[in-house]
Amino acid sequence: MSKELVQIFDTTLRDGEQVPGCKLNTEQKLVIAERLDELGVDIIEAGFPISSPGDFKSVEEIAKLVKNATVCGLTRSVKKDIEVAADALKFAKKPRIHTGIGTSDSHIQFKFNTTREKIIERAVDAVKYAKSFVEDVEFYAEDAGRTDNEFLARVCEEVVKAGATVLNIPDTTGYCLPEEYGAKIKYLKENVKGIEKAILSCHCHNDLGLATANSISGVRNGARQIECTINGIGERAGNTALEEVVMVLRQHPTLGLDTRINSQLLYSTSRLVSENMGMPVQPNKAIVGANAFAHSSGIHQDGVIKNRETYEIINPADVGVTESAIILTARSGRAALAYRAKKVGYELTKLQLDTVYQEFLKFADSKKEVNDKDIHEIIESSKLLNLN
Amino acid sequence: MSKELVQIFDTTLRDGEQVPGCKLNTEQKLVIAERLDELGVDIIEAGFPISSPGDFKSVEEIAKLVKNATVCGLTRSVKKDIEVAADALKFAKKPRIHTGIGTSDSHIQFKFNTTREKIIERAVDAVKYAKSFVEDVEFYAEDAGRTDNEFLARVCEEVVKAGATVLNIPDTTGYCLPEEYGAKIKYLKENVKGIEKAILSCHCHNDLGLATANSISGVRNGARQIECTINGIGERAGNTALEEVVMVLRQHPTLGLDTRINSQLLYSTSRLVSENMGMPVQPNKAIVGANAFAHSSGIHQDGVIKNRETYEIINPADVGVTESAIILTARSGRAALAYRAKKVGYELTKLQLDTVYQEFLKFADSKKEVNDKDIHEIIESSKLLNLN
Repeated sequence: MSKELVQIFDTTLRDGEQVPGCKLNTEQKLVIAERLDELGVDIIEAGFPISSPGDFKSVEEIAKLVKNATVCGLTRSVKKDIEVAADALKFAKKPRIHTGIGTSDSHIQFKFNTTREKIIERAVDAVKYAKSFVEDVEFYAEDAGRTDNEFLARVCEEVVKAGATVLNIPDTTGYCLPEEYGAKIKYLKENVKGIEKAILSCHCHNDLGLATANSISGVRNGARQIECTINGIGERAGNTALEEVVMVLRQHPTLGLDTRINSQLLYSTSRLVSENMGMPVQPNKAIVGANAFAHSSGIHQDGVIKNRETYEIINPADVGVTESAIILTARSGRAALAYRAKKVGYELTKLQLDTVYQEFLKFADSKKEVNDKDIHEIIESSKLLNLN
Repeated sequence: MSKELVQIFDTTLRDGEQVPGCKLNTEQKLVIAERLDELGVDIIEAGFPISSPGDFKSVEEIAKLVKNATVCGLTRSVKKDIEVAADALKFAKKPRIHTGIGTSDSHIQFKFNTTREKIIERAVDAVKYAKSFVEDVEFYAEDAGRTDNEFLARVCEEVVKAGATVLNIPDTTGYCLPEEYGAKIKYLKENVKGIEKAILSCHCHNDLGLATANSISGVRNGARQIECTINGIGERAGNTALEEVVMVLRQHPTLGLDTRINSQLLYSTSRLVSENMGMPVQPNKAIVGANAFAHSSGIHQDGVIKNRETYEIINPADVGVTESAIILTARSGRAALAYRAKKVGYELTKLQLDTVYQEFLKFADSKKEVNDKDIHEIIESSKLLNLN
């Protein structure tokens, strides 16, 4: 079965960088942008040019540097924003302007204090104006997750008519359930006249821990772009994690969808972003956490040693992790101990293992992790007692 | 609409503690168990008693301590395991034995080197034997996520007949998609004779970032227990995060499901577990991350200042976080600056704000975060230039 491609729109340098305490300088942004290009993302959202002179400069330098990916700049539905973004993108091989406006009643009423008709007018004007600078114009309907589908479809129809090439449907507050978000995409796919001229894009936030599931639900229902960040960084609980959606699609070939990402660069890219931003990745982070491929309980270790696929669905090498670590703790079983003992140079008989294992458990109860040196000691002291 | 209750089965002290490097001593486990009881979890899985003398002792002490929750101990389908677990649980007010065996072809073939019929036999024997010690017996069908539904239903039917009160359907490898996991629960609900005598339980792992979505899909399809851990800790990419599933159900009242969790204790419980285990929570962790309620971009800050619900779906106080922080960076807009300036003691006119904002941006471009003292300085130096 040939697979349809889902575009990966990386916003690590824009939505991801909007994180308290993780501001990057231009030099760091260039290093990350170059790596994202190598990783195979289709679009790099490089920044929000009007927001500050530093951000303008970063977008401009990234536009010069990037070889393959489309380079995108964010704007509000404001003329000045769009002009500045177009200026920042002038050296890009493939420039994209990302403009938009809030469409939910909450945004229309509290943020803009205006009406639905005025919102459509501003949206259309912004897209047309952006179109006067670049061919590729993405429109975001901010808080689409809480916008009623009928009005959202009207907005989409009008901006597609105005020339929008991509329609970003953000679940800005991270509130949607997967079924609901998927149904929204499906509704737009079926009800927006001219929808075949644009790509629907998922932009999900992780406030309830559902960003990955929502994005996957979106592409299963017709979206063909996912907006995401390395390590899922971003405001509040962050954005959809790039590494997660990429690996969900790759591990589920029956979905018939794939991306152009070179997954073997995922782990090192995660490290690069984490170190530059000073944003730690928790050990239990999916795909890229330090423990993502580590096994410590006896039952699991036994299974992994007999056959890796018993407990591991992803080959660690496929995401750039060199080896799944078997870590010895008080929860480890005989099989793990025998495996490590063998690596350290001891072939234990079943009887010997029983004895050594008892010593090992006493030792492990008082220690977080048992290392190779400890194993030597345990085995040698057991020998004195019983093995000889 | 009255809501149906979903039981929260916390396995922080068992599956959560199976984490490389985060072993807890008995004293620490007691502190956490007491807090979990206060938090309102329905079941505390306290450990795997046969795995080590230290774990036995912890389960025994937790069983003595806990006032409200059921206390549960894990076993394999092995007589000795069950005897030791029953012994460790003898002081529990509400004891539960959690026994089970692998049911997927991969587990049957590679781990047990046996047949499907033998697996059913061992499962039934284990449940009957556990039943001879306690009334409440939960059965896990390990790797149920990769077990074909028809065989899984047969296993379930036999163990319910043998007296199992809860059927745990683990997605052991974290491979399932939400639709698939939900369909599995639905299939069992509809095809297992006697299913009304047992509660179906979701036990999901986060290898692809889908544990929360899978658990929610499970309860939407008839499961009434979720197995989870604080901060989503656990082997590899961890288990379902307790705080996420609890808040998904609470924020989506139309699902008609709720838990007994006192959500205001979520944040402090997260800290307690993180500190005792030495397992950091990443800043962008949903619900309990340091940034979960922090806003730094101008667009968002403006919205939050005008009306909190523009960008925040959860009131931070509901999960025990005292205030959503407005953090000033180079991405912040005028509204955020004016808000903070006011807190620091300056009422700026629109014209004054324009001037101060330009100074602020120059300053912020060279700094990660702008604090109150910086604001004083920026405003005072701006005054000298323009404001007077």
